[in-house]
Amino acid sequence: MRNICMLVSYDGTGYYGYQSQPGGNTVQDHLEEAIKALTGEKLKIHGSGRTDAGVHALGQVVHFHTESKIPAERWALALNTRLPDDIVVRAAVEVPLEFHSRRSAIRKTYKYAITSCRFPDVFDRKYVFHHPAPLRFSAMQEGLAYLLGEHDFSSFTSPLSTKPHHVRTLYEAKLLVEPGGDGEIEQGRAKASLIVSGNGFLYNMVRIIAGTLLQVGVGKRKPEDMGIILAAKDRSKAGPTAVPHGLTLMSVEYGPEWGIDWREAINRRH
Amino acid sequence: MRNICMLVSYDGTGYYGYQSQPGGNTVQDHLEEAIKALTGEKLKIHGSGRTDAGVHALGQVVHFHTESKIPAERWALALNTRLPDDIVVRAAVEVPLEFHSRRSAIRKTYKYAITSCRFPDVFDRKYVFHHPAPLRFSAMQEGLAYLLGEHDFSSFTSPLSTKPHHVRTLYEAKLLVEPGGDGEIEQGRAKASLIVSGNGFLYNMVRIIAGTLLQVGVGKRKPEDMGIILAAKDRSKAGPTAVPHGLTLMSVEYGPEWGIDWREAINRRH
Repeated sequence: MRNICMLVSYDGTGYYGYQSQPGGNTVQDHLEEAIKALTGEKLKIHGSGRTDAGVHALGQVVHFHTESKIPAERWALALNTRLPDDIVVRAAVEVPLEFHSRRSAIRKTYKYAITSCRFPDVFDRKYVFHHPAPLRFSAMQEGLAYLLGEHDFSSFTSPLSTKPHHVRTLYEAKLLVEPGGDGEIEQGRAKASLIVSGNGFLYNMVRIIAGTLLQVGVGKRKPEDMGIILAAKDRSKAGPTAVPHGLTLMSVEYGPEWGIDWREAINRRH
Repeated sequence: MRNICMLVSYDGTGYYGYQSQPGGNTVQDHLEEAIKALTGEKLKIHGSGRTDAGVHALGQVVHFHTESKIPAERWALALNTRLPDDIVVRAAVEVPLEFHSRRSAIRKTYKYAITSCRFPDVFDRKYVFHHPAPLRFSAMQEGLAYLLGEHDFSSFTSPLSTKPHHVRTLYEAKLLVEPGGDGEIEQGRAKASLIVSGNGFLYNMVRIIAGTLLQVGVGKRKPEDMGIILAAKDRSKAGPTAVPHGLTLMSVEYGPEWGIDWREAINRRH
């Protein structure tokens, strides 16, 4: 028995999320079907976390146990020829049997992309939320700072959350602002990427942070309201859940003890 | 009668090219239908040039004569609400009646995007040609230099061309190379954008240049072959026509006498 860990990208537009569900057509289903077509094994893969319907991933990490003897460096190409073109396995490595893509993760990074330009950019319209009114980027940046560090994020998750507690640590929370072609940053027209990095994220957490931060961006809330909302530990105090298509899981990190080096794996001769 | 000039972006994936044709479903058809829905006029719009099926545009320019009194700054929003989401009118300006989007153009710029990383990037897979083998970027850059200036580009157009002559001037021909996530430039794995700018382009010209340059990139031809092919004025000496989806019409420029200022038009209050 071997444990194979893979780095996976997907355009979530056409899927009912990462995780298998009765209706099918999830990223997990497609990966499991491709593995079955390759090795004949009907196995279960485990992801670092679910992503909702319509959410994308640049660097989702999954693992699975297999009896197959296919060398680790062959899996990516072999699976990609059996996958739809909006799911790409970027690399695969063999890891210790104890490794678990979700339980072993120590840090995850998400991006929520917003454009406040008058019209969407046709080339990334499926990955960027179009908010066609000026935003106060500096107020948004100020508001984000309240979320840094260890907090109970109950205000920023669904009341349906079944987690034992809602304490998570945000290591990074920043807004990268760049000219959006049709915009002028000084006029509040730009592409803005909310980047959040932490030890774990609750259900809908990044999308609720984004939805609340957009209210700061339009002046409906003050930057310091972010701290007040956090302290309330009450979902009803925060803003709406932003639409899924602006969200991308960027990367998942693991401790050095697992020996995972994606850059080396991607560039290995195969 | 007024002459309205518009800056238009489109994702060409789903269209049979820019220009109207019997089968329908072209960018021009959709623009004309949106105008008809808005003003009731059944008019003909003129583009700066046709783009083939599957080719994209960031900055196509079109013009049309209208009896409508809608102020120029209102057209973009009014048409965008009537257009599919893969066609976006970025701005509209009123121009002198003599202005013609094709005949008045003095410079056009195209990009042909290539990735030589092992696997395509899911987020731009529809706009970038995936060539999954290392490329010699410096040889490609060297080869491109032979095309600069005024030449008869008969080797780089379809033999079916009906143009009176094939002399065109390239002002710029360069390859921008950037890390492609899964690649290492030194190993020939990267994203490379071929940027060509000239006073006019023949049918399939950029795609044949790209197809020939890729042969230089894999070592099948030498950089200096680009000059030899050009001198031959014979289509059969050049390489294949590269696939359409890597090509994007980036911009079309006009002389200052027409008073077209897209940046100002885009950011005008409306």
